[in-house]
Amino acid sequence: MSELRILTPGLGAVSSTLMAGVMLARRGLGRPIGALTEYGELDGQPINDLVVALDDISFGAWDPFNETAYDVAKRSGVLTPEHLAAVADDLREISPKSAVFDETWVQALAGAPNTKTGDSYMDLVEQITDDIESYRRDGERLVMVWCGSTEAYHHPTPVHQSLTEFELGLKNSDSAIAPSQIYAYAAIRAGVPFANGAPNVTVDVPALEQMAEQYGVPIAGKDFKTGQTLLKTVIAPGLKSRRLGIRGWFSTNILGNRDGLVLDHPDNFRSKEITKLGVLDALLEPAKNPDLYGDLSHEVRINYYPPAGDNKEGWDNIDLVGWLDYPMQIKVNFLCRDSILAAPIVLDLARFLDMAKTAGNKGVQNWLGYYFKSPHPVEGEPTEHDLFVQERILLDEIRRMSAGLTTT
Amino acid sequence: MSELRILTPGLGAVSSTLMAGVMLARRGLGRPIGALTEYGELDGQPINDLVVALDDISFGAWDPFNETAYDVAKRSGVLTPEHLAAVADDLREISPKSAVFDETWVQALAGAPNTKTGDSYMDLVEQITDDIESYRRDGERLVMVWCGSTEAYHHPTPVHQSLTEFELGLKNSDSAIAPSQIYAYAAIRAGVPFANGAPNVTVDVPALEQMAEQYGVPIAGKDFKTGQTLLKTVIAPGLKSRRLGIRGWFSTNILGNRDGLVLDHPDNFRSKEITKLGVLDALLEPAKNPDLYGDLSHEVRINYYPPAGDNKEGWDNIDLVGWLDYPMQIKVNFLCRDSILAAPIVLDLARFLDMAKTAGNKGVQNWLGYYFKSPHPVEGEPTEHDLFVQERILLDEIRRMSAGLTTT
Amino acid sequence: MSELRILTPGLGAVSSTLMAGVMLARRGLGRPIGALTEYGELDGQPINDLVVALDDISFGAWDPFNETAYDVAKRSGVLTPEHLAAVADDLREISPKSAVFDETWVQALAGAPNTKTGDSYMDLVEQITDDIESYRRDGERLVMVWCGSTEAYHHPTPVHQSLTEFELGLKNSDSAIAPSQIYAYAAIRAGVPFANGAPNVTVDVPALEQMAEQYGVPIAGKDFKTGQTLLKTVIAPGLKSRRLGIRGWFSTNILGNRDGLVLDHPDNFRSKEITKLGVLDALLEPAKNPDLYGDLSHEVRINYYPPAGDNKEGWDNIDLVGWLDYPMQIKVNFLCRDSILAAPIVLDLARFLDMAKTAGNKGVQNWLGYYFKSPHPVEGEPTEHDLFVQERILLDEIRRMSAGLTTT
Amino acid sequence: MSELRILTPGLGAVSSTLMAGVMLARRGLGRPIGALTEYGELDGQPINDLVVALDDISFGAWDPFNETAYDVAKRSGVLTPEHLAAVADDLREISPKSAVFDETWVQALAGAPNTKTGDSYMDLVEQITDDIESYRRDGERLVMVWCGSTEAYHHPTPVHQSLTEFELGLKNSDSAIAPSQIYAYAAIRAGVPFANGAPNVTVDVPALEQMAEQYGVPIAGKDFKTGQTLLKTVIAPGLKSRRLGIRGWFSTNILGNRDGLVLDHPDNFRSKEITKLGVLDALLEPAKNPDLYGDLSHEVRINYYPPAGDNKEGWDNIDLVGWLDYPMQIKVNFLCRDSILAAPIVLDLARFLDMAKTAGNKGVQNWLGYYFKSPHPVEGEPTEHDLFVQERILLDEIRRMSAGLTTT
Repeated sequence: MSELRILTPGLGAVSSTLMAGVMLARRGLGRPIGALTEYGELDGQPINDLVVALDDISFGAWDPFNETAYDVAKRSGVLTPEHLAAVADDLREISPKSAVFDETWVQALAGAPNTKTGDSYMDLVEQITDDIESYRRDGERLVMVWCGSTEAYHHPTPVHQSLTEFELGLKNSDSAIAPSQIYAYAAIRAGVPFANGAPNVTVDVPALEQMAEQYGVPIAGKDFKTGQTLLKTVIAPGLKSRRLGIRGWFSTNILGNRDGLVLDHPDNFRSKEITKLGVLDALLEPAKNPDLYGDLSHEVRINYYPPAGDNKEGWDNIDLVGWLDYPMQIKVNFLCRDSILAAPIVLDLARFLDMAKTAGNKGVQNWLGYYFKSPHPVEGEPTEHDLFVQERILLDEIRRMSAGLTTT
Repeated sequence: MSELRILTPGLGAVSSTLMAGVMLARRGLGRPIGALTEYGELDGQPINDLVVALDDISFGAWDPFNETAYDVAKRSGVLTPEHLAAVADDLREISPKSAVFDETWVQALAGAPNTKTGDSYMDLVEQITDDIESYRRDGERLVMVWCGSTEAYHHPTPVHQSLTEFELGLKNSDSAIAPSQIYAYAAIRAGVPFANGAPNVTVDVPALEQMAEQYGVPIAGKDFKTGQTLLKTVIAPGLKSRRLGIRGWFSTNILGNRDGLVLDHPDNFRSKEITKLGVLDALLEPAKNPDLYGDLSHEVRINYYPPAGDNKEGWDNIDLVGWLDYPMQIKVNFLCRDSILAAPIVLDLARFLDMAKTAGNKGVQNWLGYYFKSPHPVEGEPTEHDLFVQERILLDEIRRMSAGLTTT
Repeated sequence: MSELRILTPGLGAVSSTLMAGVMLARRGLGRPIGALTEYGELDGQPINDLVVALDDISFGAWDPFNETAYDVAKRSGVLTPEHLAAVADDLREISPKSAVFDETWVQALAGAPNTKTGDSYMDLVEQITDDIESYRRDGERLVMVWCGSTEAYHHPTPVHQSLTEFELGLKNSDSAIAPSQIYAYAAIRAGVPFANGAPNVTVDVPALEQMAEQYGVPIAGKDFKTGQTLLKTVIAPGLKSRRLGIRGWFSTNILGNRDGLVLDHPDNFRSKEITKLGVLDALLEPAKNPDLYGDLSHEVRINYYPPAGDNKEGWDNIDLVGWLDYPMQIKVNFLCRDSILAAPIVLDLARFLDMAKTAGNKGVQNWLGYYFKSPHPVEGEPTEHDLFVQERILLDEIRRMSAGLTTT
Repeated sequence: MSELRILTPGLGAVSSTLMAGVMLARRGLGRPIGALTEYGELDGQPINDLVVALDDISFGAWDPFNETAYDVAKRSGVLTPEHLAAVADDLREISPKSAVFDETWVQALAGAPNTKTGDSYMDLVEQITDDIESYRRDGERLVMVWCGSTEAYHHPTPVHQSLTEFELGLKNSDSAIAPSQIYAYAAIRAGVPFANGAPNVTVDVPALEQMAEQYGVPIAGKDFKTGQTLLKTVIAPGLKSRRLGIRGWFSTNILGNRDGLVLDHPDNFRSKEITKLGVLDALLEPAKNPDLYGDLSHEVRINYYPPAGDNKEGWDNIDLVGWLDYPMQIKVNFLCRDSILAAPIVLDLARFLDMAKTAGNKGVQNWLGYYFKSPHPVEGEPTEHDLFVQERILLDEIRRMSAGLTTT
């Protein structure tokens, strides 16, 4: 029987790839590469020993389209036919519950059929809560990881500033409350840890930060650090270490899956652009290093290009300068696969959030910033983007928690 | 008056670019970008405060061709005509002393005219020693950094196993002793710290390691970590951090300067290949991570291609695998400039070796591994290649030395 | 004394590079590479023998900014300081006349100071005509090549449908008439051949096509085929020749000069996008080859990125399919220089238009399509985009004209 | 029943991909993209109408390893499991006859088990002849296309200078005669057209050229023009058309299949290097265009890199110069698939050679140069490398032959 159920609002390429991968790995038909919880060590001990076993994980999902995990995986074209066939029966058993969906937040999916209706947003919260409870079999623990589409960018409003205001907003169906926030609220209220894999504003508002503290629930976000940004947070620290100047960094992406379609809309791209653009400033600290990074042009483009399918290709041009300001260039072409890079992150996050909950952690878990393009900031603390520093922080917290667990 | 004189066996593109850059920076006509000793900080204090000032640095050189630093710089085509004109007079004053040269070690330069002859290798040592002393004006400290060509690869022989054997070999002109080792011996005997910027075997033999300990002289090497390998030691740790597997890493280089001409010979390329190939194994530890890196194909090619001039261009193809072993690729095209990346390394090394000598350090300075493709190993200690770990080690030693200096 | 004067509305990077290049080449200080009229042959005879000599060419210009050709060239950063110094005096003598300018057509240059005012557009025509005549020294022939900014896209209106309507529109200052059309009208009326190097709608409207026929003046356009599109019209025919299918072609550009700034505005980019997008359809004929090109995604992006300066860098990803529809990819990274590629095109066009005028050609010269992204179509004739076919057509016409000239 | 049987010495990735593709296409399970004989037109008529139908083609093969076409295809990893499964039974029926093999010509395959032995090379010819005749069912026509490994480079010797000498050499087992020449001799003697898809010297020697004339058999070669060279013969003419100068062209390849293994040996690479290097000189004619191409550095590298598998990846760096000799660069990264590009070439060549035989053509068919890196030269005629000119020549000959066929 399962010990941990991973609930994903969004049953798309990422979550179906995760599910299939876990099923394949359990049978020795595939390797869960890219997961620190599978291949990492801490002080000589496999991290795998500290987290819930693959065999003890199960899944649940919501989606505005009524396709089984099998249908989704087949349509997404991520997995080979062999892989798909091997776990077809198990994937077919996973059907999404109807979703909280509002097309003003994701225009590209307007008209999606598998959606909830209710008298108010609070009513939708109750429906989600019922779904959550229906997933919670005896003794099973739950975590929720947002694997849905990127929502349109909206700056937080007063309704997000306190839990009281937010709950009033839910009752009034305040249009500033995003669907993802309805899930997050329901999760936290039900004691379920929540992570946000997309760039939209979800739990990174005072109302839900407070709520997570009050309810003793760990939360984390946002926007999985997968392809281009992952490399950026590796290369930029390297150039900075050597005190090479950077004049420009132009990043373009082509991607063809549903994620690309959604991001083709300027409002949704805006959410993504914000999380992607912030990285270099945080890493290079131009204010502290004006000679080297003071006049940096950083541009990010995302382009919907159907032939790419689930392959997400990045092309970066970096204009750097060295001794006497002589110019040099680095071009990076990353032919990556979005879901293949994201799936192990969901697995790690689910396991670590589960571990954190058990260890008594609550509120923002910024030691999980390692997994995010835009780590959820904690007031008064700098936001770390350097992948290597992030890894150290992550391992330190795992060590701390695991020591605590042992000694108790 | 100068406090520190940097002596370079080899007056080529790298050393002339260093010299011109220091001269330009002193007059505010250029910025010494890429030097940690110019742009780095340690605990909030500029590292620049801890090292000899740019104004207090002067130069000396040996070369088998009798061109002034100006002639070399002009021929090398690294600097703009404006930069060259601004320091032409100063560069013209730097003429190389005749070199210890043997064409069996660098066939591509056979017939070079500005070379020393002597009764024995020990006689050549004495001539170099005379040169060194002629450079040492009152009160001036000296460091020597090998900026000469890559010598052909030869495995160390018994003559390199002890100082006694080595000195006997010098007297007998043992053909296993490389020209660079004659310089290194002379430097160490004269109390002058020595660093090796090329991939040849020079001070990384027991005889000279012992000698450096005995004479209380710091030594370091080898092979400046500039373009492609610099990026490799940044990207590989990033992929490893995320537990992404690597099946292949193909690295090709095109370069057109004299360095390229020399490396076009298989014997000389062999020296380079060894230092370049070792990096990934050390970083990825395939024995510890057989699932991820056990069957990695790592290939390195260097191609002499005259149109590139001093621009050294690298193209890397990295075959990585993620979740369920699905393949992805990263292509990195680095349009770099060899001398522009190497010059600040020579400046940093000279200053840090000088600092180390003053602090009483002696023998192999493996905390300087940050600057080298193939850090000089210390018996019983692992060789660190990760740029970020290397930087931490470097800063720790600077902190230690600078604390020592202050407290004394 | 000059025989041909090249008049350029727009004294920017392209025209100043052309002027400097012609001056340098005349003195043997530079080579006019890229010009067919300098390096081409026709039936064994240098094409250069058939056109006006470099020594007999002079220049004139209009620009909304009041900088000399020297100031422009210096600011543009295309030429080396050596080249610039060698022709500085001659370039300083070329000052632009005030321009017909309207910021609604080029918002990025709003507020430009060196502009004409007049009672009506026809009044502006008269002012341009005065300028033209002031440039026409005794016996000198003239050609005009638009080297100005890309104007915002506007679909032609009724005012462009006949010369009568157009002249009425000039008197009424019809806002649908673009500044470039005011120049073109003045040129044609004065018997001066006109070519359009930008993507805006200028002479490609019935009114000006008729006018060119009536006045016996050759016209040509539009949008110089320089970097990315040049390669596209080479590679696409190659893939088509081999009957390889194409699923997608994603083209992105980064450029940093004033051209880039202007194109950063959506209205101006729209003009460019139209000329760039049309190319593949015309080349691949998806209607005739539905199996191979029926579902092609063709995307073009242009990005303003200041660090690029006058360097215009293109990155193309081509998704092709071969035997059994197996996918392959070609990535092309073109590090080109806009003005360096455009300058010889202006020289060729000016000489060939001059030759055409002398030969009695009039109206649209579609044999000059070789030089344009969007060859000016002739009713009832297909538009050829294949560079190799275009070259054959060009040479055929030169042969025809030159035979005519000889026999007369 | 089959009308044409395609015989391939070499049953490897290319030939098994061809066979599977033809089988799949016949059943509508795959499209024979890349074949001019499937997708080309001539004067409005499908070329397909002029050649033998897919349904009327069958296969035969020799190989030094005793694997069926199914085993080979499976091991090669070119085809998807779905494609493979659909034609598994048919592929399993194709077993190679034992090969004429000599490890001095292909060291990498030393020890191959499925090889012929004989008293003399002439004895081996007789064995091959028996094989050929066993393949020739009633009424069936035959063509032979060399799809075997690249043989080591050997300059032709006197034995290759006349048919008399060559036949004497066969009897004496002259070591200068390559295995591929034994096949070619047997084919020509049996009236079977022969094409050479590899770079080795085979029919391009006087003895076999004469023989083909005497026996009335068409021959063609050599070295299929697939990936990098295909693009080179497209891009180089484009740059030349625009009179852009080229200073350097550096081409590197990584490939991982058996072809790569064989080419990893310097003697075999030498064969390939010769065919690849000749292309640019022939295209650019540096002697005629010394200003533009006089000092071109052209370098070609092929690297065995197992992770690439059958994917053959090319990276080209082109250093070009424009106006005033300002430098620009083009980088081309071609992620291609060797067998996918070669299979349709074999199909086209087989059909066209069959057509040529029927039309009474004999000897060297240089109009087939379109398909080869190193078109078989005809004395006194220039060798054309420009893909577009080659296509025109090809179509002209097809038109000529097809007219002839109709009128007879």
